[in-house]
Amino acid sequence: MKYWLVLDLVEESVIYWIGTVIFAIASLVFGMLEKRSNDRELIFRSHFFVGFITTISYMVMALTLATSVAENGQPIYWTRWLFYIASCSILTLDIALIARRPTPKKVEVALLTGLTMFCGFLASIIVTVDRWWFFGLSSIAYIGMLYTLFNVSEGSARISAIMWFVIITWSLFPVVWVLAPTGLGIFPTSMEAILYLILDFVTKITFGLYVSTRFHPL
Amino acid sequence: MKYWLVLDLVEESVIYWIGTVIFAIASLVFGMLEKRSNDRELIFRSHFFVGFITTISYMVMALTLATSVAENGQPIYWTRWLFYIASCSILTLDIALIARRPTPKKVEVALLTGLTMFCGFLASIIVTVDRWWFFGLSSIAYIGMLYTLFNVSEGSARISAIMWFVIITWSLFPVVWVLAPTGLGIFPTSMEAILYLILDFVTKITFGLYVSTRFHPL
Amino acid sequence: MKYWLVLDLVEESVIYWIGTVIFAIASLVFGMLEKRSNDRELIFRSHFFVGFITTISYMVMALTLATSVAENGQPIYWTRWLFYIASCSILTLDIALIARRPTPKKVEVALLTGLTMFCGFLASIIVTVDRWWFFGLSSIAYIGMLYTLFNVSEGSARISAIMWFVIITWSLFPVVWVLAPTGLGIFPTSMEAILYLILDFVTKITFGLYVSTRFHPL
Repeated sequence: MKYWLVLDLVEESVIYWIGTVIFAIASLVFGMLEKRSNDRELIFRSHFFVGFITTISYMVMALTLATSVAENGQPIYWTRWLFYIASCSILTLDIALIARRPTPKKVEVALLTGLTMFCGFLASIIVTVDRWWFFGLSSIAYIGMLYTLFNVSEGSARISAIMWFVIITWSLFPVVWVLAPTGLGIFPTSMEAILYLILDFVTKITFGLYVSTRFHPL
Repeated sequence: MKYWLVLDLVEESVIYWIGTVIFAIASLVFGMLEKRSNDRELIFRSHFFVGFITTISYMVMALTLATSVAENGQPIYWTRWLFYIASCSILTLDIALIARRPTPKKVEVALLTGLTMFCGFLASIIVTVDRWWFFGLSSIAYIGMLYTLFNVSEGSARISAIMWFVIITWSLFPVVWVLAPTGLGIFPTSMEAILYLILDFVTKITFGLYVSTRFHPL
Repeated sequence: MKYWLVLDLVEESVIYWIGTVIFAIASLVFGMLEKRSNDRELIFRSHFFVGFITTISYMVMALTLATSVAENGQPIYWTRWLFYIASCSILTLDIALIARRPTPKKVEVALLTGLTMFCGFLASIIVTVDRWWFFGLSSIAYIGMLYTLFNVSEGSARISAIMWFVIITWSLFPVVWVLAPTGLGIFPTSMEAILYLILDFVTKITFGLYVSTRFHPL
């Protein structure tokens, strides 16, 4: 409990500014990396766009431009989920590409990711108990997305490491959501901000660097 | 007139909850039906997505999350039209696929459907007389969509039954809009809710089952 | 300074209604022109859609449906930028088509255009000094878009006239933004409305007629 008290003293906006700078640098790095890998397997500079959209998202949170207030008085930065609609759909589309899924499956994966994040947005902006309905719908879309993305009956070894990485790291987002003021309010918004930043870093930057160098050789 | 009075006693939210349950079940059924028809003519699990998006839409209305108030004091559930942008574009895209329209025509059909519903959203959220301008723009986009979708000079028999079904059932939506509090206010919002639910059922579930079994044989 | 005073007496809504009528007529003309050029190089009736979306945008501004207030008291019509997300992405997609850019580059150009206009929307709806951050991000996306669109190493003569036309006319939009109440407030919103109308006319209608007749021969 002591930790939460310390964290409560940290302004979330400091964490969001750190996120802004990190993702601005990441956008720059991916922009250069992906420029060199022109005309290869890489469909478009996906990780640059993920980084750039996340930079805008962090800046919007750093400036506290739009928030709601949870029942326990903590602020909720619901805009994050609207930006995830775009950035995470691009990410799962890239994973579907690496997993060599057919085009209809790619469309399904992107749509299910978008619906996961859209329901996550509704669950976050609503502060009454009704938010759990949308958390439920979001979870259904999320499980459907994972199933569509990874249920490759032919069993590709190419994808299995990525599969476990994605399933584990992405599934920590709803865990944070449930423990943060958006859910049960076990820890404060500042703790939530730090945890999401770590998860964003791992799922977007670390992951992006890994697939850029391994699956889209420079 | 007596009927309206009775209907006024019905809480719209009851109707919207019924819609939520119906479309949740429909999503499940389409999800299973379309899973079996894998790798066929079906581009992606379109009717599952239409059902899932409509489930979210009905839940948002059931919880009365965002409404405006018509001049006659009746509530207006304008969020419906934002969800139609996605769900109805997917539906008309599927119809264009069945009608074997070339790709540019599919893009036009989806864009015109989106513009129809977006102008419908503007016409619904605005409560002043200005809303009729957007009703007009919506109608133009709608007629353009029908024309682009069905003006097959080569005259395909394959599409004619579907064509008449779509033209008749879809055109009842603006009729309800005009008679409901969104338009002239001839009947109350509860009546509107029932009529749209029937139309949603016919155009999305009945239609989906028909084309899933006939044009995308399982 | 005298000019601004005169312009201050002009209701912006008059200018927006003029824009509505001009773009409604343009939509009609492009709708007919592009119908005749069926099955040619033209992917879809892009200029009709640009015109139609701009018509809706001008009508929303003419009816003063959603505005914020600048620090100098002048109204800011930020909805314009949301409509530009759609209309300008279609426009740059068409330019990428004429420039025969590969599909991944077309996707990048459309995404970068969308991000330019989305950051422009954030920069416009925010009235505090923080808006300049988003003006900066918008400018970066814009420069990236121009670079992706026109950095054709093989040096196509086909595109060079269009390239200079686009670079010059499109770059006047941020100049107007900086001088208008959205930026430094050198001239009033009515002047901004006139200048944007001229730029919209040149970049959307004049340009559309030029490429429709030259690159998509009727």
